[in-house]
Amino acid sequence: MKITAIREKTVSLASGLRNAGIAYDAMTASAVVVEADGGALRGLGFDSVGRYGHGALLRERFVPRLRDAAPGALLDGDGLIDPAAAWRAMMANEKPGGHGERAGAVGVLDMALWDLRARQRGEPAWRTIAGYFGCEGAPTVAVYGTGGHYGADAADTGPLCASLAEARGRGFRTFKIKIGGAPLETDLARVEAALEIAGPGALALDTNGVWDPETAAGWLAALADYDLAWIEEPVSPLDYAGLADIAGRFPVPIGTGENLFSFDDARNLQRHGGLRPDRDLLQFDISLSYGLPEYVRMVDCFTAKGWSPRRFAPHAGHVLALHTVAALGLGMAEVALDAALPIGGLPGGAVVEDGRVTLPDAPGFGIEEMPALHACFAGLLA
Amino acid sequence: MKITAIREKTVSLASGLRNAGIAYDAMTASAVVVEADGGALRGLGFDSVGRYGHGALLRERFVPRLRDAAPGALLDGDGLIDPAAAWRAMMANEKPGGHGERAGAVGVLDMALWDLRARQRGEPAWRTIAGYFGCEGAPTVAVYGTGGHYGADAADTGPLCASLAEARGRGFRTFKIKIGGAPLETDLARVEAALEIAGPGALALDTNGVWDPETAAGWLAALADYDLAWIEEPVSPLDYAGLADIAGRFPVPIGTGENLFSFDDARNLQRHGGLRPDRDLLQFDISLSYGLPEYVRMVDCFTAKGWSPRRFAPHAGHVLALHTVAALGLGMAEVALDAALPIGGLPGGAVVEDGRVTLPDAPGFGIEEMPALHACFAGLLA
Repeated sequence: MKITAIREKTVSLASGLRNAGIAYDAMTASAVVVEADGGALRGLGFDSVGRYGHGALLRERFVPRLRDAAPGALLDGDGLIDPAAAWRAMMANEKPGGHGERAGAVGVLDMALWDLRARQRGEPAWRTIAGYFGCEGAPTVAVYGTGGHYGADAADTGPLCASLAEARGRGFRTFKIKIGGAPLETDLARVEAALEIAGPGALALDTNGVWDPETAAGWLAALADYDLAWIEEPVSPLDYAGLADIAGRFPVPIGTGENLFSFDDARNLQRHGGLRPDRDLLQFDISLSYGLPEYVRMVDCFTAKGWSPRRFAPHAGHVLALHTVAALGLGMAEVALDAALPIGGLPGGAVVEDGRVTLPDAPGFGIEEMPALHACFAGLLA
Repeated sequence: MKITAIREKTVSLASGLRNAGIAYDAMTASAVVVEADGGALRGLGFDSVGRYGHGALLRERFVPRLRDAAPGALLDGDGLIDPAAAWRAMMANEKPGGHGERAGAVGVLDMALWDLRARQRGEPAWRTIAGYFGCEGAPTVAVYGTGGHYGADAADTGPLCASLAEARGRGFRTFKIKIGGAPLETDLARVEAALEIAGPGALALDTNGVWDPETAAGWLAALADYDLAWIEEPVSPLDYAGLADIAGRFPVPIGTGENLFSFDDARNLQRHGGLRPDRDLLQFDISLSYGLPEYVRMVDCFTAKGWSPRRFAPHAGHVLALHTVAALGLGMAEVALDAALPIGGLPGGAVVEDGRVTLPDAPGFGIEEMPALHACFAGLLA
């Protein structure tokens, strides 16, 4: 097998949504196709959300390195594409540290390579990933539904409640909404309305890291009487000492990690973040973190210190995350409730039953069966 | 004043050089010109080295945000370009964390804006920067000369010694060479040969962060009897605990920070890195760290904890660093000994006297008087 073409394009993810920190007016993502043997085989990759597309870095650095690698250097002994070998080729002559955009560029290519390998083996990606990393894997995973971005009127809880009720009807049992982007009183009303529908312990709140520790402490005190699933990014993602302070003062579970894109940063979170293995959630984004070869190191860094893989819930409702949760036996996958979003919804045929999803048997990640996502590849699959 | 055009291009920095971690075969950098009032005024910016050009990010995100800002929003009360206001415009809708390529894209634009502001004021950039941040500033700065990359034959100390002797003749008194990219015995011979020329306490060694703490400890033990100026990046740049371990075991001064690109990361280094205010050096790269607005916060983060500004020696032999050392009263500027490199050598007319350089009075950063650097702007200055 030989890679014969790598195509990518930038897809607009622009929307009127905003979280507490940023607006998505000009958000983009990259769609990537790695084609082998003149089109006989291919692998598809798609960015995670929130960090803009990586097309230029792909064109300038990472695609040329894959293209210029000796074909045999990218294959394993069975002639299958070896994503870890490809990863080493992509990372040649990259300095340590500075884990930003390039981590996402490598990650989206890595996803396409896993898709390609799974198609070579004729099996769903979760099974390929599990086998590669020596895990058992299982196709049924716990999920939670994410919605509740701010719309035009933050004080109007109607759309929020309608969205959660609809998701509850579809089988979701745990939900996450945004807070921190409106005055405290407005957000408390949103939380109360959402808790009515989610039920005790089944509502998580995402603050997107906009608070300093003192502000976070004020909000967490105001939220102390609600029975919450977790609070996400209560402080800036790299403020480990601030996080440890919050974790030491409030019993509510904390979720964090979606803005840490490397083993280096995950290890610092483990060492300095004061997180609690009995309750906190690790939400590193696989696609934005150099893909699976790095992500597995990030998981190992915590499990080596006694953490259960069940404490991992990768960011972003990405089908890559869904398959990785199944492959590595992680705790939960995020699902964007709006199935019209490119990385919203579930693979074709999958339904949520009592908060769990069973992945279909389509080869690879099954992107062909996700209409909104598949549409992003228009023009790349010629 | 109104910005009327922003042009950028990618310049090749390819060379046969390598350090312990990477080769520079395909290295690039971005040159940026911000033009105001139809060309009546302009500012020039140039990337630092080692992280590749930022052209695509400039085109996709940061130039459009500057271009789309209301012109008045980028000016101060005197009608001068206000780089800090421009910085806020550039960073709109950027999530926290992930301080990688975008930090360099913002930084190179920021440099051009300081150049523009200094030209508006008709003064050298160091004076503009000092005034803006309320520092006194002074045009004479301590420098050290960097060379000693590995060439084709690491064991041949001839070129290394010739380069250091020539620099000593030109007035340099402190020198830095690469180690860690050859076997220990070969590197020890390089160190001994270089120390002969540099003299006791005047030779620094740059390992480029390729060692784990145990490997670093082995090398530092082997180097313990040499009188060294400092050891640079003895461990991976984000391994704060590993760095603290080394700092606790070896008295040799440590230099680090060139691969940390944000206030967030600098604060973690301060909190968790175990560095010693009486000897260690902080080498954050200004251009790669979102430019001056962020860099000043990084400096303040340490000085607030009792560090002297003299412990700062910004990375990369960049003319931006030279002017910032003068403006903020920092300890030392790095100068690449090979003046044929785009960011090598000194501004026109400047000479090194007993390890110190006095900056000329040309407006801005004086890039017109640095032939190798100015050549990188060919085609952008029409």
